[in-house]
Amino acid sequence: MAQKPSIPKGTRDFTAEEMAKRNYIFDTIHDVFRLYGFRQIETPAMENLSTLMGKYGDEGDRLLFKILNSGDFLNGVDRSLIDNNETTRLAAKICEKGLRYDLTVPFARFVVQHRNDLQMPFKRFQIQPVWRADRPQKGRYREFYQCDADVVGSESLYSEVELLQLIDEVFARLGIRITIKVNNRKVLAGIAEVIGVPDKLVDITVAIDKIDKIGIDKVNDELAERGLSAGAIAALQPILAISGSLDERLDSLAGILAGNEIGQKGIEELRFVTRTTVALGLRAELDLDVSLARGLNYYTGTIIEVKARDVEIGSITGGGRYDNLTGVFGLPGLSGVGISFGADRIYDVLNSLDLYPAGTSAASKIIFANFGEKEALTSLKAIHALRKACIPAELYPDTAKMKKQIGYADAMNIPFVGIIGESEMADGTITLKDLTSGEQQQLTIDQLISRLS
Amino acid sequence: MAQKPSIPKGTRDFTAEEMAKRNYIFDTIHDVFRLYGFRQIETPAMENLSTLMGKYGDEGDRLLFKILNSGDFLNGVDRSLIDNNETTRLAAKICEKGLRYDLTVPFARFVVQHRNDLQMPFKRFQIQPVWRADRPQKGRYREFYQCDADVVGSESLYSEVELLQLIDEVFARLGIRITIKVNNRKVLAGIAEVIGVPDKLVDITVAIDKIDKIGIDKVNDELAERGLSAGAIAALQPILAISGSLDERLDSLAGILAGNEIGQKGIEELRFVTRTTVALGLRAELDLDVSLARGLNYYTGTIIEVKARDVEIGSITGGGRYDNLTGVFGLPGLSGVGISFGADRIYDVLNSLDLYPAGTSAASKIIFANFGEKEALTSLKAIHALRKACIPAELYPDTAKMKKQIGYADAMNIPFVGIIGESEMADGTITLKDLTSGEQQQLTIDQLISRLS
Repeated sequence: MAQKPSIPKGTRDFTAEEMAKRNYIFDTIHDVFRLYGFRQIETPAMENLSTLMGKYGDEGDRLLFKILNSGDFLNGVDRSLIDNNETTRLAAKICEKGLRYDLTVPFARFVVQHRNDLQMPFKRFQIQPVWRADRPQKGRYREFYQCDADVVGSESLYSEVELLQLIDEVFARLGIRITIKVNNRKVLAGIAEVIGVPDKLVDITVAIDKIDKIGIDKVNDELAERGLSAGAIAALQPILAISGSLDERLDSLAGILAGNEIGQKGIEELRFVTRTTVALGLRAELDLDVSLARGLNYYTGTIIEVKARDVEIGSITGGGRYDNLTGVFGLPGLSGVGISFGADRIYDVLNSLDLYPAGTSAASKIIFANFGEKEALTSLKAIHALRKACIPAELYPDTAKMKKQIGYADAMNIPFVGIIGESEMADGTITLKDLTSGEQQQLTIDQLISRLS
Repeated sequence: MAQKPSIPKGTRDFTAEEMAKRNYIFDTIHDVFRLYGFRQIETPAMENLSTLMGKYGDEGDRLLFKILNSGDFLNGVDRSLIDNNETTRLAAKICEKGLRYDLTVPFARFVVQHRNDLQMPFKRFQIQPVWRADRPQKGRYREFYQCDADVVGSESLYSEVELLQLIDEVFARLGIRITIKVNNRKVLAGIAEVIGVPDKLVDITVAIDKIDKIGIDKVNDELAERGLSAGAIAALQPILAISGSLDERLDSLAGILAGNEIGQKGIEELRFVTRTTVALGLRAELDLDVSLARGLNYYTGTIIEVKARDVEIGSITGGGRYDNLTGVFGLPGLSGVGISFGADRIYDVLNSLDLYPAGTSAASKIIFANFGEKEALTSLKAIHALRKACIPAELYPDTAKMKKQIGYADAMNIPFVGIIGESEMADGTITLKDLTSGEQQQLTIDQLISRLS
């Protein structure tokens, strides 16, 4: 009984100080989503397993948290599944529900289920936790939040422009300097065609995605292993080597892809999106990266990835355009574009750069010392007035020694202590003690309110 | 495949309009919690089943959602459990984790686990969903939010005062007229002693709790069934019949409980809490209700329940003082007082009284019509300026017919449409169409910003 309790591995408690920081991130993202006309939805933590299974590959199916059916869950279960230890099939019999693995599949399910009530284009955002039975490790959790925004039901590239502006605004507000890397699936398809291996698109992208990590030589080795001819690899080299400004690189790439229809379409899309976004004034660095190939099975147009410029860490936001969000639920051909903010990594970046604004704290602005019933009642009246002025304030609940009460304020990072003793009662004032400077001031309630506002 | 997808029974999707209303409630509660010096924490959705089991009675254990262990979950499981269909014991073997059932047990676990890092008194709040495998019915869901605030580590009655003020402030902000009913467990114990049946405290409270529903005669019948003598029942009648103002009723009760130690202590506590709260100015009606006995196994002092005055619905907030939050986790004697807001019922009350403020909407303030590339770029510049002024604004992404674009704005409850066509491009203005009145105005961007601010 007296064993110290714990939580499941890979999950976290968030203390008040951590929550203050996390809320700062989530509130920032939330406010910008709303400013850009996205509408929040929420879906249940539990989905039917039939909704989730088969959407994330075999590995994903294994990583789903499954919820045991209530009551007599063995009723009607074929005992041979148990005798033969067929745990995967057995799990499907004794579990009807699972915890959501991401926000994309529940969103697709939502769109199909509510399609008659939705106006297209539908701009939604969603900020909720997801669960994966992954092996926990540094920076990888079994419960973590995703923050997704998508525009579905329109093929307009203005949606891409809007999302790039939105990314820029979120990180400008957070004070994180970023590079937004863009690419286009059509450009990748064009490259594969131009170097003569249209069927090797996936192999090419898997390999060149690693350039930053392993270098061009090892990428070329891998391309050879994956069956690319020496000629195809040689033809790829000038593409990987293009340099200059964004426009210069688009020009070089356009030259290389001249006459290739899909490649030119990709270049055109990239030109429109980047030109328009830059014309509207972007604070982030915008970069073309032909090695960018995330989510290739899914994305069909623009691909977006965001890196922090001042911290070594993986991508902190990513997204792209897709053309078949809901086909698996029987509603084919729905195009959209979406992005996902990586809240945990953004949290790490803000921590390592110490970028939280001064006010990011769970603490009240002031706590009043408690000297007994009469003084406490007068203090409570002052506290009531402060709260009316939207200043978080509280009374120390017990009549402990002054040293203990001050120590509590200090430990809680409450910057000010209000003191109403006999003399303050007599002249209707409050003594304000600034715990940072140690200074004391005698103030009326109005002066106190304007001092703390 | 093409079967229309659905969600598990008892769970809900929240659409954008519903989320706007829910956020209004949660934000209000959140803001007031913070104003009163409470600090937000979050705990994981999944807890170890050893943390949850045995805390909610047998019925509660059955209503826990259990999560199937990953991988080879049958490994090492005694097959006789399967053969004998011992599903409860089997579930405990193949499931280590469960979804949280409320916020109280995870909070107690949190306090014990982090006790070396916590300052007492610890004022925490928590707003998170909980899950119960209850039979779904109207107003009862398998996933719902709880909004709890507690002060632990102090026995001071100022915490009760603070929570009553906090309740008053939340419902004043929401515009819901309420009655706060208070009682005290010590008064109930005193009553049981005074009428000569100290061991029948639970029977008495279970029965008299139903007075409003079934009337005094049936309550008396039930008391007799539960073994109270005619004398004890007779002695109880004047207590249930006390009337008058709050102070008059406290006086009557004090008279009846004269000489009873625990009863007098309860009266004293009620006097202090109500007197202090009223002195600070309460907008809610405050009422003594000796039949109020919620959570009797748990509460040891003040008991609080809130009813809406203008809607027939169960209690919309409740709470009380306890003196052993964490004993079950090996840390005995921790006293505290807490309240829990019933978000779903508050939502129902706001809906039935239509109390949402005019601005409660998921919608942007303005959408710009899209007439093609040049006009769109100029519109995007205006949109950028509006967003800088914190006005949610967006561009219709496609160059559809004007009628379709206006229809979209209308369906989305966006009140204004911005129009930048050739003539507006020429003179640098924006035509603002008010969809409510149908009026149109030609404005500069600065005029537009101040019009929509």
